Amino acid sequence: MMKTLQVALDERSYPIYIGDDLLSRPELLTSHIRGKEVLVVTNETVAPLYLQKLLDGLTNYRCEAVILPDGEEFKNLTVLNEIFDKTLASQFSRHVTMIALGGGVIGDMTGFAAACYQRGVPFIQIPTTLLSQVDSSVGGKTAVNHALGKNMIGAFYQPQCVIADTATLNTLDDRQLSSGLAEVIKYGLINDVAFFVWLEENISALRNRDQDILAEAIERSCRDKADIVAQDELEQGVRALLNLGHTFGHAIETGMGYGTVLHGEGVAIGMVMAAELSSAMDWIQVEDVERIKKLLLAAGLPISPPEVLSSEQFMNLMSVDKKVQNGKIRLILLKAIGQAIISDDYSPDKLAALLT
Amino acid sequence: MMKTLQVALDERSYPIYIGDDLLSRPELLTSHIRGKEVLVVTNETVAPLYLQKLLDGLTNYRCEAVILPDGEEFKNLTVLNEIFDKTLASQFSRHVTMIALGGGVIGDMTGFAAACYQRGVPFIQIPTTLLSQVDSSVGGKTAVNHALGKNMIGAFYQPQCVIADTATLNTLDDRQLSSGLAEVIKYGLINDVAFFVWLEENISALRNRDQDILAEAIERSCRDKADIVAQDELEQGVRALLNLGHTFGHAIETGMGYGTVLHGEGVAIGMVMAAELSSAMDWIQVEDVERIKKLLLAAGLPISPPEVLSSEQFMNLMSVDKKVQNGKIRLILLKAIGQAIISDDYSPDKLAALLT
Repeated sequence: MMKTLQVALDERSYPIYIGDDLLSRPELLTSHIRGKEVLVVTNETVAPLYLQKLLDGLTNYRCEAVILPDGEEFKNLTVLNEIFDKTLASQFSRHVTMIALGGGVIGDMTGFAAACYQRGVPFIQIPTTLLSQVDSSVGGKTAVNHALGKNMIGAFYQPQCVIADTATLNTLDDRQLSSGLAEVIKYGLINDVAFFVWLEENISALRNRDQDILAEAIERSCRDKADIVAQDELEQGVRALLNLGHTFGHAIETGMGYGTVLHGEGVAIGMVMAAELSSAMDWIQVEDVERIKKLLLAAGLPISPPEVLSSEQFMNLMSVDKKVQNGKIRLILLKAIGQAIISDDYSPDKLAALLT
Repeated sequence: MMKTLQVALDERSYPIYIGDDLLSRPELLTSHIRGKEVLVVTNETVAPLYLQKLLDGLTNYRCEAVILPDGEEFKNLTVLNEIFDKTLASQFSRHVTMIALGGGVIGDMTGFAAACYQRGVPFIQIPTTLLSQVDSSVGGKTAVNHALGKNMIGAFYQPQCVIADTATLNTLDDRQLSSGLAEVIKYGLINDVAFFVWLEENISALRNRDQDILAEAIERSCRDKADIVAQDELEQGVRALLNLGHTFGHAIETGMGYGTVLHGEGVAIGMVMAAELSSAMDWIQVEDVERIKKLLLAAGLPISPPEVLSSEQFMNLMSVDKKVQNGKIRLILLKAIGQAIISDDYSPDKLAALLT
């Protein structure tokens, strides 16, 4: 069974296909490829598992593949250039379609490469991790990291379609699955308390990879995200809510060195920190903070920041994040479970206390 | 006296200010700066001449400057990253305005950096060469080069405004001035025979840097280009006419190594090659080819390709250019002076003969 979700962005609208074994249905893919040139971008972990299966469905195209090293620490301009090297060495024109086969790093890099190659070529996402299926496949944010900040160099660029094959989650290790669950839980916290409750009830089934439950979690997450993105594609306003946990989380990821703490792990810790600051401001009840921690722990996620990060490092790292406006850090905080707000109306002292 | 030309691109419309000593009028600039953060990007040649003057008008802003090496050979991802280094080290937010102070290379790199930094920040162009005043300041094409092709990595991204100060042309060397004249002559060839005739009459005055004549040439060039860009911002059709001479020219620039042949020199040679192929196809008269060569020579430009480039190298270099569609090279050719066409309807044998 396949679910189809349409992301509504005027002429940049596109479908997300969610279901079991969709890689065996190449027509989903080929109906979105214009021209005859295809570059598949994947990594060393995913290539042995799914690359051949993908290429088998594309025999009518001139296909090339570039296989990148696996990990957030390779999401930079230098490795991005390997995509351009391969595209140009293959003499692909501005009518090439780029396909991202992999997790969030591959999706972010392929999307950004597609946005820049000859000033823009079409691309398709085939996310193979839970994190990328619920997060980076919706919203068109593409980027690479800089040594001084995460996702600092990028573009808003929408894919032609997204194919989320839940069968690929069977090869995902437990830590990566949990990392994805952090983003799933985030949607409940932002504006969907019913989904949060559903997650509390189904967290074990999700960790046990029940395919139907996973598909439902992916669909609800993508729908929640797509609703927000459709209101604010370029993040001038409400879209910033999706950054819940991310300003803290990015600081942790950057400060620890990319790849040490997984993205979802950073977000999980960041959501707890956002909840604790919200609680210190009397915006959310202490019991709700405990409920959030309990669900994250049940999902196999960390809830405390690494002790090696000093509060000074933390503040410096948070200051370069994109949520800063004229020197003041805007944070996403919680008025309740299912009610996130964008705010710079918090006590700086309470933020400082949280970081020490 | 100052002329103002409006480039009409809906909500991305912007003004071009053309006139003498506009750097002494900072209000032109500041009326287009939002926020309080400014990064000036310039190069080693231009910085000693105009950077301080620019900064003197921006005392109310937190300004930083990054000074790049000068030359097309530095227009790559590695040097681009120096802009991001400086921006991040300065802890500039997504509300920073980037100002390009320099020629086409600085404009292209700053525009692309602005398009990518935190997925897009505002930028302003202050072109200080004739080439950049008549070409890269209109149209929103930004890019860096790749070892395998020129301008292969970039974005369409419009500035807030362009300030073309003709006084800056007084410090330009003769070869650079001539390089700019190649693009000026191009507009006459594409669709403005009256301008071509005017250029034949005024070419000496232009080389002698008559300020009024220069200002008129810049205004007419920008207007011609803006008219075409307004019809086709993303180069799906008619905008390709602006590439007259460029497919040949890029091959020469890339093949000789960036910086050996100036951009305008490559374009001049490329326009002669386009004219000669058009003449071989009986589309343009032999006398018109001679008229074109005569004007280019009078402008101080080369008209013959470097002999070291083999025809095979030429074809390979042209094949990676952006004008290729499903393996066939589309060229901009001439039906007459002032009547360029986009065509793949030429004889491949005649093209091959031209390259040998």
